[in-house]
Amino acid sequence: MSWFDASVMAKKGVAQGKPGASHFIGIKDQGTFHYVYGPYASPVLEVDPGAVVTVETHDAFEGKITSESDRPSEILNFPFLNPQTGPIFVRGAEKGDCLAVKIISIKPRGPQPVGTTCLLPEFGGLVATGQTAMLNAPLPEKVKKVRLDENGVYWSDTITLPYEPFIGTIGTSPEIEAISSLVPDYYGGNMDLPDVGPGSIIYLPVNKAGALLYLGDCHAIQGDGELCGVAMEMPATVQLQVDLIKGHTIGWPRLETETTIMTIGSARPLEDAARIAYRELVRWIDQETGMGQEEAYMLLTMAGKARLGNMVDPKYTIGTGIAKKYIGL
Amino acid sequence: MSWFDASVMAKKGVAQGKPGASHFIGIKDQGTFHYVYGPYASPVLEVDPGAVVTVETHDAFEGKITSESDRPSEILNFPFLNPQTGPIFVRGAEKGDCLAVKIISIKPRGPQPVGTTCLLPEFGGLVATGQTAMLNAPLPEKVKKVRLDENGVYWSDTITLPYEPFIGTIGTSPEIEAISSLVPDYYGGNMDLPDVGPGSIIYLPVNKAGALLYLGDCHAIQGDGELCGVAMEMPATVQLQVDLIKGHTIGWPRLETETTIMTIGSARPLEDAARIAYRELVRWIDQETGMGQEEAYMLLTMAGKARLGNMVDPKYTIGTGIAKKYIGL
Amino acid sequence: MSWFDASVMAKKGVAQGKPGASHFIGIKDQGTFHYVYGPYASPVLEVDPGAVVTVETHDAFEGKITSESDRPSEILNFPFLNPQTGPIFVRGAEKGDCLAVKIISIKPRGPQPVGTTCLLPEFGGLVATGQTAMLNAPLPEKVKKVRLDENGVYWSDTITLPYEPFIGTIGTSPEIEAISSLVPDYYGGNMDLPDVGPGSIIYLPVNKAGALLYLGDCHAIQGDGELCGVAMEMPATVQLQVDLIKGHTIGWPRLETETTIMTIGSARPLEDAARIAYRELVRWIDQETGMGQEEAYMLLTMAGKARLGNMVDPKYTIGTGIAKKYIGL
Amino acid sequence: MSWFDASVMAKKGVAQGKPGASHFIGIKDQGTFHYVYGPYASPVLEVDPGAVVTVETHDAFEGKITSESDRPSEILNFPFLNPQTGPIFVRGAEKGDCLAVKIISIKPRGPQPVGTTCLLPEFGGLVATGQTAMLNAPLPEKVKKVRLDENGVYWSDTITLPYEPFIGTIGTSPEIEAISSLVPDYYGGNMDLPDVGPGSIIYLPVNKAGALLYLGDCHAIQGDGELCGVAMEMPATVQLQVDLIKGHTIGWPRLETETTIMTIGSARPLEDAARIAYRELVRWIDQETGMGQEEAYMLLTMAGKARLGNMVDPKYTIGTGIAKKYIGL
Repeated sequence: MSWFDASVMAKKGVAQGKPGASHFIGIKDQGTFHYVYGPYASPVLEVDPGAVVTVETHDAFEGKITSESDRPSEILNFPFLNPQTGPIFVRGAEKGDCLAVKIISIKPRGPQPVGTTCLLPEFGGLVATGQTAMLNAPLPEKVKKVRLDENGVYWSDTITLPYEPFIGTIGTSPEIEAISSLVPDYYGGNMDLPDVGPGSIIYLPVNKAGALLYLGDCHAIQGDGELCGVAMEMPATVQLQVDLIKGHTIGWPRLETETTIMTIGSARPLEDAARIAYRELVRWIDQETGMGQEEAYMLLTMAGKARLGNMVDPKYTIGTGIAKKYIGL
Repeated sequence: MSWFDASVMAKKGVAQGKPGASHFIGIKDQGTFHYVYGPYASPVLEVDPGAVVTVETHDAFEGKITSESDRPSEILNFPFLNPQTGPIFVRGAEKGDCLAVKIISIKPRGPQPVGTTCLLPEFGGLVATGQTAMLNAPLPEKVKKVRLDENGVYWSDTITLPYEPFIGTIGTSPEIEAISSLVPDYYGGNMDLPDVGPGSIIYLPVNKAGALLYLGDCHAIQGDGELCGVAMEMPATVQLQVDLIKGHTIGWPRLETETTIMTIGSARPLEDAARIAYRELVRWIDQETGMGQEEAYMLLTMAGKARLGNMVDPKYTIGTGIAKKYIGL
Repeated sequence: MSWFDASVMAKKGVAQGKPGASHFIGIKDQGTFHYVYGPYASPVLEVDPGAVVTVETHDAFEGKITSESDRPSEILNFPFLNPQTGPIFVRGAEKGDCLAVKIISIKPRGPQPVGTTCLLPEFGGLVATGQTAMLNAPLPEKVKKVRLDENGVYWSDTITLPYEPFIGTIGTSPEIEAISSLVPDYYGGNMDLPDVGPGSIIYLPVNKAGALLYLGDCHAIQGDGELCGVAMEMPATVQLQVDLIKGHTIGWPRLETETTIMTIGSARPLEDAARIAYRELVRWIDQETGMGQEEAYMLLTMAGKARLGNMVDPKYTIGTGIAKKYIGL
Repeated sequence: MSWFDASVMAKKGVAQGKPGASHFIGIKDQGTFHYVYGPYASPVLEVDPGAVVTVETHDAFEGKITSESDRPSEILNFPFLNPQTGPIFVRGAEKGDCLAVKIISIKPRGPQPVGTTCLLPEFGGLVATGQTAMLNAPLPEKVKKVRLDENGVYWSDTITLPYEPFIGTIGTSPEIEAISSLVPDYYGGNMDLPDVGPGSIIYLPVNKAGALLYLGDCHAIQGDGELCGVAMEMPATVQLQVDLIKGHTIGWPRLETETTIMTIGSARPLEDAARIAYRELVRWIDQETGMGQEEAYMLLTMAGKARLGNMVDPKYTIGTGIAKKYIGL
């Protein structure tokens, strides 16, 4: 038995973690991409719990930055950034349920150099921005195109970084809001958390009938915080398995791997993201073990792990976790 | 000549500040109220620049809290809070323009006690919330119904507060987002800034054809910060005059009175709201006077005024201003 | 009877608000100035409650910036900034008491131009700093020397600002810490709050025997937030009346004027400064009136006033107040 | 050759990383412990660069919490918390130099149960505090005494956590300030960063002749963020090797291990701690490699690692690092 058979997804999902029908959404199938997470778009696909869906995603710039001599400020057209595939309608999903998404694989797609990163004006963790508004002059724009494959990210002649792909933006629709795909929040979205990669299961709250799953913005590798605001962006082919947990209401995204459970908070200032995540984890541990919230709070003081997702998006993201072995999972 | 004749609205507006046709939107005309600021709703009214519009607004609870024995947590149904009248489509308005709205009057509407305030669980400036998430137990719920009229707010047998009405939530639609009416941001929204009252002109960025003006959430009086999160909420009749300034692009809402110009920022943490507002004001002063951004920055160090709107909403709001006389306006 | 006779100082002070012996501390009497608030310096003066003390203060730069062609970064020698007069030992003061300081007058001192402001590298509310650390290049340095007297601040040929003096830095010693005079905190210090001017009484916690009062850093005028970080700095002659309230323990500085009571919080982020101040005010109102903390919380939601002191120092400062008339004072 | 021979300490230190004379500071040798980091205390020991010093430290409560029925709020006496051993005067150290401290070992000391953790009123990451001041009632106090040794921390009958010791509080003296040992800042102090353990070298700025090294507050294990504010506190015997790097000026603490270099920032809000740390790391990488700050900024976007130290102390702490292999170290 693999760890997956004992996961929340396999134990509580409608499809019991078993793969169902296979589906494919190519770039052309998608046609029009989306720049908001909301209930106003028509589903591109409708599936049953258990569905295995293969999705082609654009990079965060929709492939428009093709050369190191490009000037992103002239090419990019806010708010039409971070194009999302979807929404995928999951049959049976209702407000108050939980959508479970197992990430099977993420592969780069398209001609080399596949990877793009850049410095954008007034965007990033170490520069003045539209929110942390200052009078200092911005840094100059700069584009870097990078070859990469499943064996590595070839940063320079001397530096090869590992290929550690994940989905930068994934989530369900809010009930009545349509929020920019640049934003992370309680429904997921642009969390930019490196843990959301192959081998993990992400759990998302269902806020609207059908759940309306969106995704995009895959990264080949990213450091903690996504410091300059643009990770190693790449077009990708993503394979997911979707399941539905009825009546399992969660406040914020959760993540499960073989060894760890994690909760994800997004807010400003950054301590509020950490508070959200850790409070959710206190509650989760207490629900699983019955040890009481205060005991869970003290245990996390000793054994909690925090992962800084982004400190650049409209809300910052932190994931907080604990080893399953400490709580008998 | 009144000060209004020399206002930005009168000098630059399509209608030159002159009142045009009169319109009325009653509660029944509105029919369905809105809980998001977005482009997906059909306009309830279409007007030309200069239009004088009288609008009936609900209170922030849509009138559902009627007694001090009510329990708001059982009555209120998130996200269907803070109902908004509108949207009003302004002919000729295009992305990049500026909508000018002169607030003529705000009158309480309906049977006494007209005013409502309350303590809501996990909401407010001095309690743990869903964003500043903590393990402390919430305060008990509490409702206070208050008689008020245009002469005063009769808080208790011994305390009468002045009637100082303003519009808590007003703004234009984002281009593609639909954002909860609980949120303030660059397009206006739930700023809860007491300066947005009769005798002032608010300037809002146009992000979408027609501008799509929404409003609601009038307050009979409010302290700086809207401390417990619920001001003296009241249903109201609001009279506005709308004008349009073509090609006048502003990043954030602005306000003008007889004596003062003000810029409004909304963000977390609170210093980012102040930075946004003050940077906009530096730019505005520089544009008006040509004194240079650094000189404006130093002048505001001596003569800038800050008004704390709210420190309870999803983003906090600060208005920053300067007396017109110091900049030759 | 003046309002002062009904003040907390007059009603509860050991000297009952009556002026006692007169004292003078000139620049030469002080000799060595202090750059920390702490218990390790010897008192320059010892007084009884009731003492009227006239103090000569340096400006925040110790008078070293004398010309608009000066380069502050070459002249100033961190941490030897913001020189403080004192400490003044108040006989009978013990930990847990409250020091009351009535500000009688603040007059500019020395040859014209008396006033100094400047732009310092990596310091200010709209620039990257050592704390909000960024990669952007700093703004250029700039010094402005300004004539001023008790009739006005002569900013430019066209702009005369009012003379609204206050003490930028005033406080008692911590018990065992010695904190830079650039910092505001629970003991007072560099609050840069314009309300701390003539006609007000400031109440400070006593943390150490003798209270050890320090002061300096007078400003001829300052906008809310002290935006560029340097107000209209001036050397001054300050006259104070000191009293002592035994067993009156307060957590943070408080202020009283004829019409208002105010509490002062200093922290980052700015909302924490506001929370500190408003919580203290809730407690103060409840103690004075017995209305209960929740009622006080709701009343402040309607009638609370917030004043942004500084958003540039190591901690930001906000004062929150309420009109005395609303609470029967 | 071990990695240590190629460390900054070994390559640039006065003693070239070679161990010199051995010293011992027992609890009785120390006599009076210190609660501030400052220049006003007399050195307990004077050493040459290269010195190997064995130090007995108290736990953060000075051993006063001995039973699970103790009530910390009655036993602890603020500000006399977090007792520190030292200061150790390092001969030759002058302002602008860098102190290098290799952590050789940390062993628990004293009778079982050696470990203490607890819930303190208004202290911790998921509760209202004196800084994030709220009206909610505090959580109940709770003490947990825990057996532990170098093989494990015996949390409960079913949970054994690993023994992963580190020094919670270590640093040099500020130049003129004396800051509570509860605070972390540019000179080190109460960083509560789990990386500061055996096998690492910490680099600290010298602000005052002799450096004046203090340390205390060892933890047997701690999760990221030190969530409830009290890690697994223990009295300990610490062995250090001290060296001095002349003329090597650093702004904030740095850390080096076999595989990683790290910079440490402490501030509120938490993003400012991250900004400080990452900006220092950008500068460090650029200095070592000459790749330019913008290239370093982009590289860290891909390969930077962030460790949340504490989110409970007066300033929050984050360490940011990069694998040495990516920058040719």
